[in-house]
Amino acid sequence: MIVEQLAIVGTGLIGGSFALALKQAGAVREVLGVGRNPESLKAALERGLIDRIVDWAGAAQADCILLALPVGDTAAVLQRLAPHLKAGAIVTDAGSTKVGVITAARAALGARSADFVPGHPIAGSEQSGPAAARADLYQGKRVVLTPHADIRTDALATVRALWEAAGAQVETLDAALHDRVFAAVSHLPHLAAFTLVDELAQRADSDTFFRFAASGFRDFTRIAGSSPEMWRDIALANREALLAELDAYLAALQSLRQAVEGSDAGALLELFSRARGAREDWMKSQDS
Amino acid sequence: MIVEQLAIVGTGLIGGSFALALKQAGAVREVLGVGRNPESLKAALERGLIDRIVDWAGAAQADCILLALPVGDTAAVLQRLAPHLKAGAIVTDAGSTKVGVITAARAALGARSADFVPGHPIAGSEQSGPAAARADLYQGKRVVLTPHADIRTDALATVRALWEAAGAQVETLDAALHDRVFAAVSHLPHLAAFTLVDELAQRADSDTFFRFAASGFRDFTRIAGSSPEMWRDIALANREALLAELDAYLAALQSLRQAVEGSDAGALLELFSRARGAREDWMKSQDS
Repeated sequence: MIVEQLAIVGTGLIGGSFALALKQAGAVREVLGVGRNPESLKAALERGLIDRIVDWAGAAQADCILLALPVGDTAAVLQRLAPHLKAGAIVTDAGSTKVGVITAARAALGARSADFVPGHPIAGSEQSGPAAARADLYQGKRVVLTPHADIRTDALATVRALWEAAGAQVETLDAALHDRVFAAVSHLPHLAAFTLVDELAQRADSDTFFRFAASGFRDFTRIAGSSPEMWRDIALANREALLAELDAYLAALQSLRQAVEGSDAGALLELFSRARGAREDWMKSQDS
Repeated sequence: MIVEQLAIVGTGLIGGSFALALKQAGAVREVLGVGRNPESLKAALERGLIDRIVDWAGAAQADCILLALPVGDTAAVLQRLAPHLKAGAIVTDAGSTKVGVITAARAALGARSADFVPGHPIAGSEQSGPAAARADLYQGKRVVLTPHADIRTDALATVRALWEAAGAQVETLDAALHDRVFAAVSHLPHLAAFTLVDELAQRADSDTFFRFAASGFRDFTRIAGSSPEMWRDIALANREALLAELDAYLAALQSLRQAVEGSDAGALLELFSRARGAREDWMKSQDS
């Protein structure tokens, strides 16, 4: 047993899978559920993701509280929990951006922000909600914790132990670097995929285009099936890093455009060959 | 039996799979292989994709000749075949762009361009070469034929019958529309994926970025694992349509950038919601 009581705020795919995995590992005795969506809480209870539905004050009495919701809701939820927080209770989150979440924790929790452990599990799917939760979602997946300067060391150790019990490999990263890295390898690709699909869908003759789209298009745009609310929040929360990545990508696309316009066969072949090589190296590093 | 002798120019994934499927269907008696890569021909012979290796003059004596090579090689190959072409022989191709291929056929074949049937199977994978060929590659997949004004009707009918025997659904499309549609749903996504990977790979600290790339990145960039030579040729052959698509995408990304910069939550949510909805509709239409 790592903690007696775990409270989950947002009992969807991410929170529900965390609860399931920890129950299966015997790492928690009781899981409490709280949130603003009664249907989702009821479904989580029925599926056995949580043992009990509680209110904000009830959740704040748990030993550990996981926030698993769109990052834009973090500040409001922390404010609701703050007045009731049990002594020694740890608060952690699963948001995709980290600098903004740390700022929100400092503002809402004051001195108790030492008990806040910012986290980001690198797992998920376009599926969402309690029905999609699975005990093995985090098995072998990475979880990044981004400890801030005044973090309580044993709170960090407990959250690390919980994720490890859920099957994840835990790493730590500076929060600003985290946000820059994920802007590049996750946030930008998501926004680029949404934009590509939307640009086509806006055309009067979009049916003709979609009709001939095939497996390359399907995979390229898979992430455009993700939650619009979640990605709106991420785009807003990671604005600066995302703008830098967008500008780098726009510049790279402009230089590609130049090569196409100039029929520069050599430049195109070089670019495509470098890209394929880099991707092959990356795929190999993923296997090991 | 639809044709007695079929010659395949380029005995890789596309040509080899066509040959395998037609043999299995009993639609051809003998398959001849020709090309500039002796290793690929030898491998195709060993795998039974072809029955015999022939020279250009030998290939030109077949009843039907399929060109399955990077579109940039089309003109040169047609010129080699032209002087030897048997009376009534049909020439077809599997290139990803069609306007340029038709122009090349008119120049190389003159009046015999009536026997040229431009085709494009919407199937493939990042795998290539004879080892990747499979009899079921075209099963249930679309093949687009783009007949030109002076095409011989029975040549078109024979090529249609061959693809149908290979398991494909055949459709016809105007060549210019074909090139515009595929620029949007295939060529642009490929180039956008190559460019994203290359832009990251060029960074001094690219390791840190690739280290945290996950399944979203993997799927978004899967098509950046494709053949650089093939995509160089496509980019060159479909230059005008591709430039138009690149400009439309760049404009859409600029307007996304504006929404991010202005923290325009409403515009972002609308864009992401529209995109997800359009993709869901498309996926449903694919199932049916």
